[in-house]
Amino acid sequence: MNDTFLKACRGEKTDYTPVWFMRQAGRYLPEYQKVRGTVTFLELCKRPDLAVEVTLQPIDIFGMDAAILFSDILIPMEAMNLKLEFHEGRGPVFPNPVRDQKGVDNLIVPDPDATMDFVMETIRLLRKELKVPLIGFSGAPFTLATYLIEGGSSKVFLETKKMMYQQPEVYHGLMRKITECTSLYLQAQARAGAQALQIFDSWAGVLAPCDYEEFAMPYVSSIISDLRKVTDVPLIYFANNGSTLIEHTVTVGADVLGLDWRIKIQDAVAKVGNHALQGNLDPIALFLPKDKMRKRIGAIVEGAKDAKGHIFNLGHGIVPQVPPEQVRIAVDAIHELSAR
Amino acid sequence: MNDTFLKACRGEKTDYTPVWFMRQAGRYLPEYQKVRGTVTFLELCKRPDLAVEVTLQPIDIFGMDAAILFSDILIPMEAMNLKLEFHEGRGPVFPNPVRDQKGVDNLIVPDPDATMDFVMETIRLLRKELKVPLIGFSGAPFTLATYLIEGGSSKVFLETKKMMYQQPEVYHGLMRKITECTSLYLQAQARAGAQALQIFDSWAGVLAPCDYEEFAMPYVSSIISDLRKVTDVPLIYFANNGSTLIEHTVTVGADVLGLDWRIKIQDAVAKVGNHALQGNLDPIALFLPKDKMRKRIGAIVEGAKDAKGHIFNLGHGIVPQVPPEQVRIAVDAIHELSAR
Repeated sequence: MNDTFLKACRGEKTDYTPVWFMRQAGRYLPEYQKVRGTVTFLELCKRPDLAVEVTLQPIDIFGMDAAILFSDILIPMEAMNLKLEFHEGRGPVFPNPVRDQKGVDNLIVPDPDATMDFVMETIRLLRKELKVPLIGFSGAPFTLATYLIEGGSSKVFLETKKMMYQQPEVYHGLMRKITECTSLYLQAQARAGAQALQIFDSWAGVLAPCDYEEFAMPYVSSIISDLRKVTDVPLIYFANNGSTLIEHTVTVGADVLGLDWRIKIQDAVAKVGNHALQGNLDPIALFLPKDKMRKRIGAIVEGAKDAKGHIFNLGHGIVPQVPPEQVRIAVDAIHELSAR
Repeated sequence: MNDTFLKACRGEKTDYTPVWFMRQAGRYLPEYQKVRGTVTFLELCKRPDLAVEVTLQPIDIFGMDAAILFSDILIPMEAMNLKLEFHEGRGPVFPNPVRDQKGVDNLIVPDPDATMDFVMETIRLLRKELKVPLIGFSGAPFTLATYLIEGGSSKVFLETKKMMYQQPEVYHGLMRKITECTSLYLQAQARAGAQALQIFDSWAGVLAPCDYEEFAMPYVSSIISDLRKVTDVPLIYFANNGSTLIEHTVTVGADVLGLDWRIKIQDAVAKVGNHALQGNLDPIALFLPKDKMRKRIGAIVEGAKDAKGHIFNLGHGIVPQVPPEQVRIAVDAIHELSAR
């Protein structure tokens, strides 16, 4: 069992910097495409045998130090009683977005073991196979709410912010329900065997700091506080595009803070180096020629050396166009350049 | 002549905080829609009589303290010998993106007075009408390059970064040509009568700090350095989503730094308060109820009080869905709450 990742999360000494990549089980891999070609995206999320297969692929191929459950942050939103569709090239769509109190009232807080057993079964199966730790995950309440309110992806998050500003009671009621669902969902993942949990706040960075503080952060803190009562697995919080929120995000209680690539990691260390940090290579930097990629990886490893712990990752999900060979070069470089 | 805006740019004392909004001449105004309904977007940019009309609208209606030339950052790119189209709902498209040295060689550096006289004529006409200062503008070279390389808007800027990483000579050659074009274009605007110039780096925030430093910043500095030799109009540089780049952007030599809404303005003042600052209300905060909007505006005015100068603005362009009455409330609140 390679527990380097868990040690780094806990701020313990490691022989080298552990690495995993967001979306490492994904479309850039021909092996993934082969499996994905036989089913829809939602079917792939719901078939434990196939979800296990694609979760294992990057570990087997590149030797990542952690696996992340193959799933989607919107799976529990579907279980809340919302119709969810994935349209090729357009991303997720909720045909009936939540825009008023009636929409909030229609949502249920599901029993995750009953409604999402396929996730728990995937976790149980993965634990039998894996020689590295398994990360479970969820979306953060604000990020999930944006999809529910907008009805899918968005650019300026007009409907979400309009609800925050003009119907704050409706908004907070929605957030309470999403938060309860997410909290139970992550607890169930820990019970099923997830050895670390990451909360993805993909859209936190569209909020002004004062809005983040009022409309997003308290719900993340609440989930983490719930989790602390029932599990001691490391908790990772990734607020994407959140470098200006870092003084806030450090207070939510996570063991590890995820960083996107917009901040020099040494600047993050200077601010919150008493936390373990995860990141932060620009995903497109995987297209750098080998020598330059190694140099950039070395700079991140070096820049993070005084952090309480460092898990190497991309600053956002890997893109489908990356040649797998470049991923191999990156993973090898991270291991080699960080060897102590 | 209301010169409050120019004074604030220069760090001189003003009786109140001057305000203008990015895209203030735009689709949220029925008066704009009426003009726009008769012509295409590109025709509107190229018809001085109509461009003058829509530029004046927000000044007449709301009493902004500065006007900004109605145009588009891609106008000079078309003059560089590139076919440019605007598709409704999709934004700008370059059907023949620049991806290699041949593409760069095909670009010309146009004489702005000869090829874009419609812009200079608009400026000359506006100066006869306006009782507030007129801001001219351009895109920043990196931002312009992304459109040329991607062929339009983008999410992850894969082609742009691939060119930076894999064909740096081609990339830098492209940037040199765009920079020369932009520098001449802004100089021509100043000669025609623009009283301040803003450089929009709308996509600077997708770059890691090290990439910004190598691939974007030097070209902005070069334009500003050229401008300083021939004009003393205030120069504003707006690096969107650039809060983590602020230690770099402060070095390009602008008089005023534009800020998006992701940073508390007092944090920016603490870092670069020896510069005048412009910003930084979340454009969607214009949907706040009156009392809360006034409170938020008051907090920004107060937070910026120790800056060398402050020009109130949104943190990004106004969105088409904003009710004009909300703009009136905002402008009045800014003037009232900042009165000294």
